[in-house]
Amino acid sequence: MKHASVMHDLLHPRSVAIVGASEDESKWGGRLLRYMTRHRIQGELYPINPKGGTLMGVKTYASLSECPGPIDMAILLVPSSRALAAVRDCVANKVKVAIAITSGFAEAGPEGEALQQSVLDEAKAGGLRLFGPNCMGLMNTHHNLAATTAVSMGYLETLPVGCIGMASQSGALMGALLARGIDVGAGFSTMVSLGNQADIDQNDIFDYLIQDPHTKIIALYMEAVKEPERFVQLLKQAQAATKPVLIVKSGRTEAGERAVQSHTASLAGAWPSFEAICRAHGVYLFDNVFDLLNGAMVLQRGASMNKPGLAVFSGSGGGGALFVDALDEAGLSLPALSEQTKSHLQDIFLPVHRELPVDFGVVQPKAPVDPVYGDPVTTAIGRVMEDESIGAGIVFLTTQPGMQHIARATAHVGMQCGKPLLFVHGASTVGEEARAYLREQGYGYVESPNDAMKLCTELWRRQCAALQTPVPASLQAADLAVPAQAGFLSEPQARRLLESAKIPLVPSRLAKDEEQAVQAAREWGGSVVIKAVSPTLIHKSDIGAVKLNLDSEAKVRAACQQIQDALGKAGHTLESFIVSPMLQADAELIVGIQRDPDFGPMVMLGAGGVLVELLNDVQLCPAPLSADQALAMLNNLRCRPLLEGWRGRQPVDKEKLVHILVQLGQLALALPRLTELDINPLLIVDGQPMAVDARATVA
Amino acid sequence: MKHASVMHDLLHPRSVAIVGASEDESKWGGRLLRYMTRHRIQGELYPINPKGGTLMGVKTYASLSECPGPIDMAILLVPSSRALAAVRDCVANKVKVAIAITSGFAEAGPEGEALQQSVLDEAKAGGLRLFGPNCMGLMNTHHNLAATTAVSMGYLETLPVGCIGMASQSGALMGALLARGIDVGAGFSTMVSLGNQADIDQNDIFDYLIQDPHTKIIALYMEAVKEPERFVQLLKQAQAATKPVLIVKSGRTEAGERAVQSHTASLAGAWPSFEAICRAHGVYLFDNVFDLLNGAMVLQRGASMNKPGLAVFSGSGGGGALFVDALDEAGLSLPALSEQTKSHLQDIFLPVHRELPVDFGVVQPKAPVDPVYGDPVTTAIGRVMEDESIGAGIVFLTTQPGMQHIARATAHVGMQCGKPLLFVHGASTVGEEARAYLREQGYGYVESPNDAMKLCTELWRRQCAALQTPVPASLQAADLAVPAQAGFLSEPQARRLLESAKIPLVPSRLAKDEEQAVQAAREWGGSVVIKAVSPTLIHKSDIGAVKLNLDSEAKVRAACQQIQDALGKAGHTLESFIVSPMLQADAELIVGIQRDPDFGPMVMLGAGGVLVELLNDVQLCPAPLSADQALAMLNNLRCRPLLEGWRGRQPVDKEKLVHILVQLGQLALALPRLTELDINPLLIVDGQPMAVDARATVA
Repeated sequence: MKHASVMHDLLHPRSVAIVGASEDESKWGGRLLRYMTRHRIQGELYPINPKGGTLMGVKTYASLSECPGPIDMAILLVPSSRALAAVRDCVANKVKVAIAITSGFAEAGPEGEALQQSVLDEAKAGGLRLFGPNCMGLMNTHHNLAATTAVSMGYLETLPVGCIGMASQSGALMGALLARGIDVGAGFSTMVSLGNQADIDQNDIFDYLIQDPHTKIIALYMEAVKEPERFVQLLKQAQAATKPVLIVKSGRTEAGERAVQSHTASLAGAWPSFEAICRAHGVYLFDNVFDLLNGAMVLQRGASMNKPGLAVFSGSGGGGALFVDALDEAGLSLPALSEQTKSHLQDIFLPVHRELPVDFGVVQPKAPVDPVYGDPVTTAIGRVMEDESIGAGIVFLTTQPGMQHIARATAHVGMQCGKPLLFVHGASTVGEEARAYLREQGYGYVESPNDAMKLCTELWRRQCAALQTPVPASLQAADLAVPAQAGFLSEPQARRLLESAKIPLVPSRLAKDEEQAVQAAREWGGSVVIKAVSPTLIHKSDIGAVKLNLDSEAKVRAACQQIQDALGKAGHTLESFIVSPMLQADAELIVGIQRDPDFGPMVMLGAGGVLVELLNDVQLCPAPLSADQALAMLNNLRCRPLLEGWRGRQPVDKEKLVHILVQLGQLALALPRLTELDINPLLIVDGQPMAVDARATVA
Repeated sequence: MKHASVMHDLLHPRSVAIVGASEDESKWGGRLLRYMTRHRIQGELYPINPKGGTLMGVKTYASLSECPGPIDMAILLVPSSRALAAVRDCVANKVKVAIAITSGFAEAGPEGEALQQSVLDEAKAGGLRLFGPNCMGLMNTHHNLAATTAVSMGYLETLPVGCIGMASQSGALMGALLARGIDVGAGFSTMVSLGNQADIDQNDIFDYLIQDPHTKIIALYMEAVKEPERFVQLLKQAQAATKPVLIVKSGRTEAGERAVQSHTASLAGAWPSFEAICRAHGVYLFDNVFDLLNGAMVLQRGASMNKPGLAVFSGSGGGGALFVDALDEAGLSLPALSEQTKSHLQDIFLPVHRELPVDFGVVQPKAPVDPVYGDPVTTAIGRVMEDESIGAGIVFLTTQPGMQHIARATAHVGMQCGKPLLFVHGASTVGEEARAYLREQGYGYVESPNDAMKLCTELWRRQCAALQTPVPASLQAADLAVPAQAGFLSEPQARRLLESAKIPLVPSRLAKDEEQAVQAAREWGGSVVIKAVSPTLIHKSDIGAVKLNLDSEAKVRAACQQIQDALGKAGHTLESFIVSPMLQADAELIVGIQRDPDFGPMVMLGAGGVLVELLNDVQLCPAPLSADQALAMLNNLRCRPLLEGWRGRQPVDKEKLVHILVQLGQLALALPRLTELDINPLLIVDGQPMAVDARATVA
């Protein structure tokens, strides 16, 4: 069966049978029938119950075979013990897709897993597609389809129509988002609880949402990634379709990963690579589903944040000040307003108040009507949001006279300014009128300042890292110096590989013996470093085969002797010495190439030395990467201050560092045999990055 | 007038006059009269309006002089232009305290400031105490006093009686908290909007709340600290009275401080010292007022968090997993449950589910009734909260059947378990029944997972740093070696001072000349460091008067020559050389003594070297400090991993480091003449902390 066709049967069925329908709303079968009848799907509805008759006024059939027409979709509410029979019945009656709500399958242990496999085999053999099991069903507001058992649905008189398409691996969280969505005025096109994904999976739904003309924003709650390659392809398609993708993935931490594993069959996968892939494709990443919903609520208006400047508006000086403290801590800034903006505000505020945060409490009496925005509050919000330094805005409402007016002014400006403008409702039910207005307008609001700051932080963070256009290959395998045989590369081999990839290295000479080493040291002048080269030796430092700070011939000779002795004792043969000048580094980084089993080659950049343990300061980016992406990696390092002219040192040459990262990406692409590469350290000497040591393995 | 008496007149007045009362509720005078009549103060109410007659059914007087009895309190709602006359009238009629709601005083510029001073002078001369101006008044629920213009008050049919006493420097934020408080079931004893604090100030109210028998929790929103000494005394009194104090202070960041200054006359003061003082006195510090309210809501039940273990309960595996990710990032832990706890859960969950996070979705059918807690959900929450590894709990509600039951179970356990148990309501209005139950019980809830995590983080953080008992003095001024004259101490002087304070130092020898230096170097063996001593030289490194890594006699001699030349060039006289062994440090710290103009002597501990710029890793604690406080400083350092056995290095001897911090505190106390002391670096050599260089100034 064609894929597009099954998604059509699933989300736009012309006829739906409910197997296990009931009159009793305390049962799933009664609840689901209630929702389906209330929202009156555009098609036929066949309740199935052995007793026949009518249920909730709808003619009911004793079995699928008695239904008067073809059945696109069957919703199975029978216990797991009767699931196999129900699926056989679906097959016999040429049902196209079945939603299995029932639990007791793969999530419940080995027995359930075997049952799930039998059900799946039976369905596949009969040409029946399966959704679930162990799910809460789905909703398509544009088809009046409420095929879900979610408790929240019981509270909806009308479906919350909109452009947010959502798929959730957790049914409970889907239900919570549906409920919160009603309250904040979010509109959904499609909402799907994925369950065990025995057949139709998250990627299928993701694909559908990208195609669906009613969906403009895609929101996913994930616990694991199925078929990572397809997932990445879909991220690219969503990006090409300019549909923002918002994701929450649990299992970001070790403890979270254990929690995910304990309630689902799937492994969470490594978060850092997942994060890097998402960032490279412009995904908005959130920590929890309510933040995700807040993001969708703001983005459904087509706005995006392109500057780190945040405008804060409040009816209270104190409230404004608290937001200013918070945004400073979040890395966002409160810009100075332009002279033009100030001139627009001159009749509204005294000179001292024509600044951020804007305080509505000090609006001048008798401010004239602005030609564009009208009243003073709307004008203040509108003119400040126009300021070119502003990327997004927050309006903080406390309990005050004229609350609805502030809400109206915010919605008016926010709907049209093209920048995210978030309403932080701090007036609780006292401000219900304002809240109701924003809900009815589908504008929405948040009630926690913490939620507001997390949202703005992510809106801006996402802006910094996305890849805009594909990076072409610029390195050819033929240009790269790499041994034909598999295995660990010796240091000279690794150096040749880096040289061929145009990555700058600390200069060095190979010396066959002590005499040549002395000669090399003399040529470098000053202090030198001597290291052993041996085909069998991997961890040189561990056995004392690296000697630093050698500033005399005597020391060079002694070092050569010591290295030879150390190698002999450890059972290695000396191939040669490497002699390099001893450099004074201003900073120390680690860069390299890793290959993620799910997401392929990644370029890594991290703080080196003592900071590795302390800061966990590592950035990943999928290869190949653009110069912009490389720069974003660099700018996101926590140790960034050390690279920007610390204590009078020379700032690092960012262009050179970017070049190294870009070349590593190209190297990963051109040489699939290269399974890993670690340049540690990459020293910054007088602002110039250069590789000192490299470890590499080829397959 | 006695202070206690004025606070009684202010918050328990036997008679209140409203100057500027009105029938029109769109005016402050109408609104205030409406609130006062609705809640019927226990005493006399005299509306004052030139027209006389009745207003809202209450007999109204044309002026204060016509009132039939004495007036404890007058609320002034007249414009600022008529404030002086109104105050004179109060004085003439022997009013005891006046609340000036009106704005247009010190907050509005120099003219307003002058007006405020005149009003204050007039009041003082006449024995009238003043509250405000530019405030929203106050409320005492236990006296049915609703003397506030807060818009939120219009939505209250009954006053929200409870034990949270609150004072806010922002009227708007007070109003917002009153509104949010209604919604989350928080009960207030007293709520005060401070305004400009011309006379009665935050400390007066703080003092009152400590004495007030109806107040168990004290919550303050502050922008500046008036009379820091008194404030600290009050912190001590609140601690002695075991009343938790919760504070939000704006102006934590530079940008926030500017925002505060722009709307209030007061300077915010330095946040780090304020934070240190608060932490030392067990204050809960929050970033925004809603977090503060959430804290008060949880603490009003008398619970406190004494372990970092957090129990997470959820009806959804996905919801649980998201919280686990978040708490891991917040430094809290999800402990393993004890065998005893597991045995209590054995009939409720399968073995694999007898762990955190607890998932209500997998309760076994037919679980028996627990003798203590009854039903399975209450039992699961109750038994897990009893576990000795648990310090606090979070119940996360998604939309699911039986939501009210989960709320009831949470409130039941939470009211009596003595540990904070927070209800995170994620079901929005769909879960209104559960929400209403928690509201009515005065139990409360939060709706944002971010708010929940911030609250738990602060509940635990506060636990770690409070000083339990005063620290006695253990160092006497007479024991300390310090020059009699004021000024900057030379290095030998600073070393003698540290030695007399029993602070370990890197060993050193004084050398009068090059020969003595060579001799000293020989005695130390290995590499040495040589530094210049000169009475006029402060920044030795800057002019090249410090030479490191001298490992031969030739180098020692050369170094002495270079230092002498450098001193000569810079116009300093050489007093002597200091010769010390060159030590290999595993880590580098900075410690010292600072004197805050508001809060007095502080001991400082920070990461040294490159980390200073990078981590802003500084801890302050008021002197003198206890060993526990010193240990908390150490444990709160971001660079802590470097001190605990990094890359196989020896862990720092914490006892020694704690001793140094404690001694610094004692030194600050014993020697008030010591205006500042910086030990930089304090090296950690083979686990032992030792001072290498010290800069000190005495007055």
